[in-house]
Amino acid sequence: MITPPYLLFLGDAPDPLAAKVAQGIRDWNPEAARGQLRLPGCRADMGLPDLTPAEAVAAGAKTLVIGVANRGGTISAAWKSVLVEALAAGLDLASGLHNLLRDEPELVAAAERHGRALHDVRVPTVAYPIANGKPRTGKRCLAIGTDCSIGKMYTALAMARDMAARNMKASFRATGQTGILITGDGVPLDAVVADFMAGAIEHLTPDNDPDHWDLIEGQGSLFHASYSGVTLALIHGGQPDALILCHEPTRRHMRGLPDYKLPSLEALRDLGLTMARVVNAGVAVVGISVNTAALHEEAALEYLAATEARMGLPTVDPFRQGAGRLIDALPV
Amino acid sequence: MITPPYLLFLGDAPDPLAAKVAQGIRDWNPEAARGQLRLPGCRADMGLPDLTPAEAVAAGAKTLVIGVANRGGTISAAWKSVLVEALAAGLDLASGLHNLLRDEPELVAAAERHGRALHDVRVPTVAYPIANGKPRTGKRCLAIGTDCSIGKMYTALAMARDMAARNMKASFRATGQTGILITGDGVPLDAVVADFMAGAIEHLTPDNDPDHWDLIEGQGSLFHASYSGVTLALIHGGQPDALILCHEPTRRHMRGLPDYKLPSLEALRDLGLTMARVVNAGVAVVGISVNTAALHEEAALEYLAATEARMGLPTVDPFRQGAGRLIDALPV
Repeated sequence: MITPPYLLFLGDAPDPLAAKVAQGIRDWNPEAARGQLRLPGCRADMGLPDLTPAEAVAAGAKTLVIGVANRGGTISAAWKSVLVEALAAGLDLASGLHNLLRDEPELVAAAERHGRALHDVRVPTVAYPIANGKPRTGKRCLAIGTDCSIGKMYTALAMARDMAARNMKASFRATGQTGILITGDGVPLDAVVADFMAGAIEHLTPDNDPDHWDLIEGQGSLFHASYSGVTLALIHGGQPDALILCHEPTRRHMRGLPDYKLPSLEALRDLGLTMARVVNAGVAVVGISVNTAALHEEAALEYLAATEARMGLPTVDPFRQGAGRLIDALPV
Repeated sequence: MITPPYLLFLGDAPDPLAAKVAQGIRDWNPEAARGQLRLPGCRADMGLPDLTPAEAVAAGAKTLVIGVANRGGTISAAWKSVLVEALAAGLDLASGLHNLLRDEPELVAAAERHGRALHDVRVPTVAYPIANGKPRTGKRCLAIGTDCSIGKMYTALAMARDMAARNMKASFRATGQTGILITGDGVPLDAVVADFMAGAIEHLTPDNDPDHWDLIEGQGSLFHASYSGVTLALIHGGQPDALILCHEPTRRHMRGLPDYKLPSLEALRDLGLTMARVVNAGVAVVGISVNTAALHEEAALEYLAATEARMGLPTVDPFRQGAGRLIDALPV
């Protein structure tokens, strides 16, 4: 569990996209974003106060979160001196980088010296159990996609935010690095050992109030040759009551697999239901979330309406329209 | 790669079942089984010459394989002195135990001193790639089951042996600890990190001669809530041309999941085909392998005949009848 609030480290981000983890925290957990720290040459800006580590601590920050990708896959000397300064000022560090903080002797030594924690969210820290398949109290919703990187996390975050605004009991459950850094907790599912994947998701979504919803962050796709096993473990460990289908209508092939076409929404609906029914006979597909960023407004609305008519399910782009109709479609 | 031939260490096995890894090697890779080493009180016997490590080396053995489960989850002092003696005599060690050889300082020191290798087959030693989904030359057959531990490994081993006897090009591809110790190589799939599962299977079953068959050892079941993700990664990484359905007709519930019934063979056929078609449009279900050990001969034959009539697929128990009809059913 990463302790909020955060100082968002933007480093020397060459463009705003490089700081997308920071942007995710800014957008989805704004009360945790206490300030930003930029190095010379940084071209990203979260519109937050620029704070030194000491100023951030004075403002209540507990953790410096690395909100930017590192260039060339190394943690540079310029970064390291700031990170050591942050530890000395009393901040923990949290990172989703491939290079682990714990593999940097200077950072390990400084963390020990100052009694601070290093959180590498790419590495599981819990000894997850083997899944037992037992039903749990509370409700669970999972977004599944025709492909990877198609809007599943965005959909779950948007639903969780809008449900909170309605005073519904809802928790976003992170299963990837960005989601974990946004919420401060979760399971880095792609780094979990095969035998424990489904058990990790059971652990992440335990018994809860009967009217509480877990909005589980999806991963991969049942139709993606590289990652489908991760997706199936999510379905069987999550025991969803509700499935949301996610799609991006202009994508030409499966991400990273140029020779693979995306499946139809019908195929995703049927296979998702078949799989989820193994662990939850009552599961239903309740809606469709489409990422229409690549379409103009008119074309987007036309596509959404046509899909809704074809599939007979509420179909929205939560970025353009909010997630309200998906929430309305959840079973009581 | 574990170097044959082997000295099979049976330790103080309290009964033959405790030595089932040794029995598997004896049954399926008999030319590798050069001798056995038993401690006082051992109640297992492979019918092999009893050899000391030095005698085994003189007889050509290269590796001592721990063919027995350890009681209480610890490597006892009695075991350790024999294992150190084996290293000193010039043997490598190979083990599928949960307790790793590499975690025993005495064994690590002795291995270094004598220049020998310690093989813990539960731990992946290869940095497997992310699966790329590209078609490969050669043919692949995968057994999938209505449940775990239902005869998938046995079926693949029986097919590989009978294909070799027919001078067909065939390789058993191990994906579990016992299979790896039997063949000396493979992928310990249940210990691979989630993102690399399918890539590990692509790595295990590379391009081959057009008329070569990989017989891939199955794992788990698409219908098993704990392990289904592992099974799906096997299907998508393996890109099978042929699927064999495996079943055990007297099992009352899914292994380890008392509240879960087994699916029908029809459900397994349909879901297996749907999943395998994602990566190989030409895949076919070619036969059914039934473990009828719990049935008397007459009941077994009756069940096999009724299932064959119902499913329209060659249906055999390879233990009673051999795997010939499954091999005949493979596409040319």
